[in-house]
Amino acid sequence: MKTEVIILNKERNVTLTAYIQEIGGAFDFVTKRPAILILPGGGYQYCTPREADPVAFPYLKAGYQVFILRYSVNKHSTWPNPLNDYEQAMELIRANADNWGLYPDKIAVIGFSAGGHLAASAATLSKNRPNAAILGYAVVGEDVKGCNPTAPDTISAVDSNTCPCFVFATRTDGLVPIMNSVKFIEALTIHDVAYESHIYAYGPHGFSTYDSSIEHPEKKLCNRVPNWVNDSIEWLKDIFGDFGVNGMTTPTCPLHTTANHESYLSVDCTMEHILQIEAGKVIIEHIFSSILSSTSLGQFGQNKDISQNASLAGKMKLRDCLGFLKIPNDIIEKMDNDLRKIKNI
Amino acid sequence: MKTEVIILNKERNVTLTAYIQEIGGAFDFVTKRPAILILPGGGYQYCTPREADPVAFPYLKAGYQVFILRYSVNKHSTWPNPLNDYEQAMELIRANADNWGLYPDKIAVIGFSAGGHLAASAATLSKNRPNAAILGYAVVGEDVKGCNPTAPDTISAVDSNTCPCFVFATRTDGLVPIMNSVKFIEALTIHDVAYESHIYAYGPHGFSTYDSSIEHPEKKLCNRVPNWVNDSIEWLKDIFGDFGVNGMTTPTCPLHTTANHESYLSVDCTMEHILQIEAGKVIIEHIFSSILSSTSLGQFGQNKDISQNASLAGKMKLRDCLGFLKIPNDIIEKMDNDLRKIKNI
Amino acid sequence: MKTEVIILNKERNVTLTAYIQEIGGAFDFVTKRPAILILPGGGYQYCTPREADPVAFPYLKAGYQVFILRYSVNKHSTWPNPLNDYEQAMELIRANADNWGLYPDKIAVIGFSAGGHLAASAATLSKNRPNAAILGYAVVGEDVKGCNPTAPDTISAVDSNTCPCFVFATRTDGLVPIMNSVKFIEALTIHDVAYESHIYAYGPHGFSTYDSSIEHPEKKLCNRVPNWVNDSIEWLKDIFGDFGVNGMTTPTCPLHTTANHESYLSVDCTMEHILQIEAGKVIIEHIFSSILSSTSLGQFGQNKDISQNASLAGKMKLRDCLGFLKIPNDIIEKMDNDLRKIKNI
Amino acid sequence: MKTEVIILNKERNVTLTAYIQEIGGAFDFVTKRPAILILPGGGYQYCTPREADPVAFPYLKAGYQVFILRYSVNKHSTWPNPLNDYEQAMELIRANADNWGLYPDKIAVIGFSAGGHLAASAATLSKNRPNAAILGYAVVGEDVKGCNPTAPDTISAVDSNTCPCFVFATRTDGLVPIMNSVKFIEALTIHDVAYESHIYAYGPHGFSTYDSSIEHPEKKLCNRVPNWVNDSIEWLKDIFGDFGVNGMTTPTCPLHTTANHESYLSVDCTMEHILQIEAGKVIIEHIFSSILSSTSLGQFGQNKDISQNASLAGKMKLRDCLGFLKIPNDIIEKMDNDLRKIKNI
Repeated sequence: MKTEVIILNKERNVTLTAYIQEIGGAFDFVTKRPAILILPGGGYQYCTPREADPVAFPYLKAGYQVFILRYSVNKHSTWPNPLNDYEQAMELIRANADNWGLYPDKIAVIGFSAGGHLAASAATLSKNRPNAAILGYAVVGEDVKGCNPTAPDTISAVDSNTCPCFVFATRTDGLVPIMNSVKFIEALTIHDVAYESHIYAYGPHGFSTYDSSIEHPEKKLCNRVPNWVNDSIEWLKDIFGDFGVNGMTTPTCPLHTTANHESYLSVDCTMEHILQIEAGKVIIEHIFSSILSSTSLGQFGQNKDISQNASLAGKMKLRDCLGFLKIPNDIIEKMDNDLRKIKNI
Repeated sequence: MKTEVIILNKERNVTLTAYIQEIGGAFDFVTKRPAILILPGGGYQYCTPREADPVAFPYLKAGYQVFILRYSVNKHSTWPNPLNDYEQAMELIRANADNWGLYPDKIAVIGFSAGGHLAASAATLSKNRPNAAILGYAVVGEDVKGCNPTAPDTISAVDSNTCPCFVFATRTDGLVPIMNSVKFIEALTIHDVAYESHIYAYGPHGFSTYDSSIEHPEKKLCNRVPNWVNDSIEWLKDIFGDFGVNGMTTPTCPLHTTANHESYLSVDCTMEHILQIEAGKVIIEHIFSSILSSTSLGQFGQNKDISQNASLAGKMKLRDCLGFLKIPNDIIEKMDNDLRKIKNI
Repeated sequence: MKTEVIILNKERNVTLTAYIQEIGGAFDFVTKRPAILILPGGGYQYCTPREADPVAFPYLKAGYQVFILRYSVNKHSTWPNPLNDYEQAMELIRANADNWGLYPDKIAVIGFSAGGHLAASAATLSKNRPNAAILGYAVVGEDVKGCNPTAPDTISAVDSNTCPCFVFATRTDGLVPIMNSVKFIEALTIHDVAYESHIYAYGPHGFSTYDSSIEHPEKKLCNRVPNWVNDSIEWLKDIFGDFGVNGMTTPTCPLHTTANHESYLSVDCTMEHILQIEAGKVIIEHIFSSILSSTSLGQFGQNKDISQNASLAGKMKLRDCLGFLKIPNDIIEKMDNDLRKIKNI
Repeated sequence: MKTEVIILNKERNVTLTAYIQEIGGAFDFVTKRPAILILPGGGYQYCTPREADPVAFPYLKAGYQVFILRYSVNKHSTWPNPLNDYEQAMELIRANADNWGLYPDKIAVIGFSAGGHLAASAATLSKNRPNAAILGYAVVGEDVKGCNPTAPDTISAVDSNTCPCFVFATRTDGLVPIMNSVKFIEALTIHDVAYESHIYAYGPHGFSTYDSSIEHPEKKLCNRVPNWVNDSIEWLKDIFGDFGVNGMTTPTCPLHTTANHESYLSVDCTMEHILQIEAGKVIIEHIFSSILSSTSLGQFGQNKDISQNASLAGKMKLRDCLGFLKIPNDIIEKMDNDLRKIKNI
């Protein structure tokens, strides 16, 4: 492993540390590696070592190229300094992808507390978006102003361009109210952004990996807390793919729950969504009226008013809805073909 | 293990199955056991066997007395029939606590999908409250009307009397929108109810324990999904205590993050809350003005306007806030004594 | 789940308890289940409940049909009474395979302590062999005479017909010396029987599943101990296959490390073994002399005396040996064809 | 983290890489750290990178100071060169304990394959003994001569001065026969050396941590294999203690199963051992004759011939034996006092 420390901004004391593993050779099938950029916390007053190297180790073990950004803090923390530091770091990493043996489109960012705010800003507000973000007991809402009055709320910045997120925290966090994480995943839900979330029953703020060499022995945390580390690694495999014979394997995690954001309609849109578009509504009403006239349909059949059915099953994908009704696959496929001719709005 | 099947309501086909383990004897230090009541899902149309026995086994292994309630479904599902079935079951279990060798105040309820709705109803609306509730891909919001038009929303029913909850689901659930779980934990957060929550990246509705004998091999779920089983068992230990030399050990999970709901003020209330009460405000202003006049205080010291400080740090417990400012313990204790004389509102 | 208790021998108080799970229906792709027969310990003086039901639960969760045999103990424990009880139980289970929805060739036996002796006897001495055996802190050697003077040593009975075994114990077991397990896996190694083995650093005898409701809270065991439960379930999947779309999937665990026991030679025999057979020796010498004359071969090439090479690499499969030397696959395949014409001894 | 590369022997190309973590500061309660010295494998022909850095990461995460020794290989591998390299490295590490912030008496060694041979040599033959040794698919017996004809067997070198060992391998290892590990743990058992051992069902040689970036995706290994990493970390906590408020906590793993190796007898010796010493035999016979004359004693009472009892229960510690017989604690304590006056042999 090679270590490099790059000074990004001397005046603001901003540095990027790179831990670069070999590719090829004894690791013959590893031609490139995914990467992760660590943003330690510290209330925008400092960057704590507790959330720097100790966080690097598990991702190094998982095969990642790992970077740690010590961004602008304390008197230099005025927004957008920290975000600019991030942009500079991410640009540099992507520009050096070949040199550092990494996939430029498989770079995650992980941040804790205030660093979690910066990671959430990267995920929602940056020019150089990461490909995934891990947010640990992050202060993502207006509460950030408690430690950095110039820093923006990131919850309101979530939109359908936000990258996939892995969000974890403890419910009893005494420093950053758990509502920060709850509202953030609510926003991800609204915009149909891929995420995974773990809110553990109890434990104080700032536990990092919760290894015994990091968290003070007298602190009380529930025993699920350290699971976030491996869970996040497994999640990244779902988002980026895993090391395969020929590069990374195909990711397994769907990015969207429905096709409501696609350019054309399909049976993977929700019924609710299709019904909003006149041409789609015609197709749905046709299939339902023929179904309803001929068969008994369980809960749907109990109420033959299509608009009522729509309100009940409206949030399901049409495909799941029809599957539930045991509609044969060829009819579903035909319907899908018809819908794919209709422009989405 | 003894098995009993008790008919609770012959007309509505409601039964309670009891799996009762020995106490004492070879299990000498186990004088009683905690218990769990399982509510299988099935859209209030049926009670699926996939969420009955297979869910019983891990809790039996963990030492629980286990009950399965087959509640009123299909034509009998009109509200409050299912809730009444629950009330009857829980009353019976508590009435037979000695007979069945269980702690009447350590009874959890676990429900899946529509059964998760019933479990959430037990947690929020019942007369016979469970002591903890586990909600699996539960349809807890208005969406429940899609399968049972007479069933109530439970999210709006959450209040500070709601029991501790463990909430899990997959984000891509195609049947019950994940927003159900998100809004439920938001409500728990607002009312400061103890909870743990795991939202896994992807997987279809209805995975039960995600053992290989239960979920169809072709279904795709992320590999963290089966963790909910052991995580929920560990969480119940945090809430109920674990088997100890003399009965159950002391629970480790705090029920509330702050003392804002207690009868008297204390340093475990948030600053925001204390400032709403005139007598409390006086105490806070006094301590802060003496602190602020004498020392440099990091982020707090940067702004000497107490009301502004309150808005920044307002959501923290006063104890944490003062600890953060390195106020000596004896001053904090004195303050606590003073606050404990002031009635809360 | 249906429970049956069958009296196998009234005089000796021998019973078989059956926990039978549904097949088909809501478990549509589960047409049959593997099974496991539990043999509790108790020094052949009694059958402890600590190693009966609590052991049943995890295998039930994993989808197994589960049986518990209370065999002949105390004054009835004279050999071969307990083994006869086992034979009777296994015959009954196999005879009722259809009735009880299980695979007659996927039945494991699990035993603890003295029950582990009986399980090892089943694996090595019985007429009705189990398809896999799990031995927990089993008293498998001559030490068994300390609790049952008439019971036989099973270590000396291990041969190539012994079924695959999963062996676990704690090193500091104060009742059954750990040498019992060590010598048993040595015997399995000698006879090339498939096994997995976990010897944990410390903990007293008789911990069963090491759940908190079973082992006394004051007993000290290392935290890896409870892993045997899930590890044994995963191991059984490797031996029996897992639940698949069409019955059980193909097992992944090879039963033998080499083909030395097969009827004909192949490149999967060890070089040592092939060299013992004249026709095999000719083939090996031919390939090696042509290789050695032309190329540099690392450690092998350093010493061109083939008999010396054979002694160094003799315990490797010829296939691995040739692969190590980078011999092309087509040459290996040709060699395999030639060897498969030669009868093994 | 600081990285240093120290040239130990320029001519033989021997280097020691040190990964040194901070102590104190943000890690306030961590005043020193335990350490581990990694010995990669490679058949004494080279030191593979697959078993160097990737092995360092999990121990770094666990809080260790980590060292990697590239020892003498290929033409320099003649014994005792590699062992001398080890001695030099361990001396250097202990001499720099303060400098590098580590406990000089809490240094483990971990080796793989041929590096496992070197680690076993360190554990059994070195002047500078490690405090614990982890042996991965190690070639510890005479088989080592297949890759290094000058290297010694280490199994025959095991004695009661051997350090605690953690031994893991796969049964189907095609390169190093599993008998190496089996015979090594047998030797540890004979000499009552603390150990833990995991032999996994199947997988090829050389899997390192079995992370997806290390082992080729087409290799087939059973899914328990990667558990050795965390299991070894937990085991080291049992042997070294864990990070505590004031230095490391007290280790929990007993080093010996009996007191047979102590200077004086005690009730923690085996009965077999005590009976070999005349003065001990007298004490035992006295207690047993008084017990046997007065009470019924289950299996022991069935046979009143003390020598026979001794042969049955001889391998148990006298304490466990008496506890089993329900002898009151005060009598056991008195007996212990008497025995502690008798010199062991």
